[in-house]
Amino acid sequence: MRASVLRNGAMVYRDDLPEPVPGAGQVLVKVSACGICGSDLHFAKHGAQAIELSKQMAGMPSLTDGVDLAADVFMGHEFAAEVIEAGPDTQAPAPGTAVTSIPILLSAKGLKPIVYSNSTLGGYAEHMLLSAPLLLPIPNGLDPRLAALTEPMAVGLHAVNKSAIQPGTGAIVIGCGPVGIAVIAALHNLGIEPIVAADYSPARRDLARRMGAHQVVDPKIEPTFEAWSRVGTGAPVIFEAVGVPGILNEVLRDAPHSARVVVVGVCMEPDAITPYFGIAKEVAVQFVLAYDPAEFSETLRRIAHGEIDVAPLVTGEVGLEDVGSAFADLGDPERHCKILVVP
Amino acid sequence: MRASVLRNGAMVYRDDLPEPVPGAGQVLVKVSACGICGSDLHFAKHGAQAIELSKQMAGMPSLTDGVDLAADVFMGHEFAAEVIEAGPDTQAPAPGTAVTSIPILLSAKGLKPIVYSNSTLGGYAEHMLLSAPLLLPIPNGLDPRLAALTEPMAVGLHAVNKSAIQPGTGAIVIGCGPVGIAVIAALHNLGIEPIVAADYSPARRDLARRMGAHQVVDPKIEPTFEAWSRVGTGAPVIFEAVGVPGILNEVLRDAPHSARVVVVGVCMEPDAITPYFGIAKEVAVQFVLAYDPAEFSETLRRIAHGEIDVAPLVTGEVGLEDVGSAFADLGDPERHCKILVVP
Repeated sequence: MRASVLRNGAMVYRDDLPEPVPGAGQVLVKVSACGICGSDLHFAKHGAQAIELSKQMAGMPSLTDGVDLAADVFMGHEFAAEVIEAGPDTQAPAPGTAVTSIPILLSAKGLKPIVYSNSTLGGYAEHMLLSAPLLLPIPNGLDPRLAALTEPMAVGLHAVNKSAIQPGTGAIVIGCGPVGIAVIAALHNLGIEPIVAADYSPARRDLARRMGAHQVVDPKIEPTFEAWSRVGTGAPVIFEAVGVPGILNEVLRDAPHSARVVVVGVCMEPDAITPYFGIAKEVAVQFVLAYDPAEFSETLRRIAHGEIDVAPLVTGEVGLEDVGSAFADLGDPERHCKILVVP
Repeated sequence: MRASVLRNGAMVYRDDLPEPVPGAGQVLVKVSACGICGSDLHFAKHGAQAIELSKQMAGMPSLTDGVDLAADVFMGHEFAAEVIEAGPDTQAPAPGTAVTSIPILLSAKGLKPIVYSNSTLGGYAEHMLLSAPLLLPIPNGLDPRLAALTEPMAVGLHAVNKSAIQPGTGAIVIGCGPVGIAVIAALHNLGIEPIVAADYSPARRDLARRMGAHQVVDPKIEPTFEAWSRVGTGAPVIFEAVGVPGILNEVLRDAPHSARVVVVGVCMEPDAITPYFGIAKEVAVQFVLAYDPAEFSETLRRIAHGEIDVAPLVTGEVGLEDVGSAFADLGDPERHCKILVVP
């Protein structure tokens, strides 16, 4: 079977993998499309650091538990697929049904995240295993390639839910990559106004506007919080969707009194903050991760019923042979937002 | 008039200050006692840094606005006093009345914080000015020296209120200096159980237990979160009351999933955190500062009616001549918690 695997920091094409065999409760599927996530790019570069950080959190199960970087690593957690066959004694949608799922595989050995693994296949493969009870048929004739965006868009819905923002309060979204765009879409669905979105890239600002931002800002030209002051009132909820060192401290420094900050960008490096900025203004910071199954299925419903148009996010498609070059191409925010791997 | 002032980083005794004259809405008072706050010690050492940090927060009024470190600085914001006389056309309690107040002076030029100033006297002085509308008579015959602890204890009540903790959830208090002790007292008043309190100092752990901690921990002997696991269940609210670099990151690393952290220790230096720790566990961090007037008066009521016994916190008393040596003595947590200046 064919797949693209992480080996020594690079994505490598293989066509010699054994065909996966579904166990009880599992379903063999043919991957229709799998989005490339920024966290995969990060893991390819800084996997050792991510594993080390996870180990420091004693007693916490982690997405990287047991991953051996000296062996091939399977990745790809933003997938849509077509049912091939169910495992023994397993109820599942009929073969040919288009499905998606949260990236968790139920197995005899317990839950396995479908994200970084030496043994559990991800979506950068021709075939993979999914959990029958977690399968969501793709509704309303939605193109499976667009259904593959359910996962990243659910991250935005979760961040917005955790923020507890309600109409009447405005929002600032810092960073308009896929995560920031997902936040903007969820804020837009909720009727939040104004949504002020900041990014250095003109292409990303255009996308942010299409997805529902009322005001886009190039921080090189106007400081984000000055733009906020022009169009918003009161203390906004600020979504930090960049995830590189230094951004959180800028937010703490520039945020108004009583601001709430949601950290949805995944910064895996140490970061320097000045706690006094947060203290002087009684800022609240909520770190968030992922989504729950209800948020995932609600996001699929919204995409399938046209409440979120994810088509503009897809800026490229590659086959399994070209995942490595797609990883490199994603470094340019002017060219790319989301690249789909279509095996 | 006599006072102790900050000059070139040290507290200096002066007896040549002009007598303050109350304006309309103001009251001249004789200071009965003024507690020495850790933030005063910090400001004496790192005042320039505090001023610089405040300036970086564009547009935010700050406690250090306009302070010139090249001139004498008045400090002392934890005071109780006795009314001498009211300013012109000013309604105030009768001369001789024991009072306290939030440390804000209303003047013709607006609000002035009584905390760090080249012109507004603080409580490290024989006499000072207070605002007539803000005066709270000290009830129930409470010793004014104990009433002076209203201010630091109100900081604890505010932190607990901002945390929104409710009985049924437990708490961890990291650091049992005056701020941590104030948090413990407010948690105890609210019926929170268990309260797990950590400090390296045996004297401070004893005090924590007296003030309501159910379990005290020496982190050198048992990691704080292991002690929590022994006596608590679920995700606790964690109060970070140390305020030195490194503590917040340890809390993020060791806290359980979905933990809420309240940062009440005032760290004025840059701090390094690993955002990934917070992200992986969806930790919420609430920075807090000070209190509101209702929290201040409620704290005074609690102290006056014996709901909080602050007497064990007072570990020393000095006159105005000895404020400098008291600042030095406060460095030893075994000897001191709160030293009162009694002019």
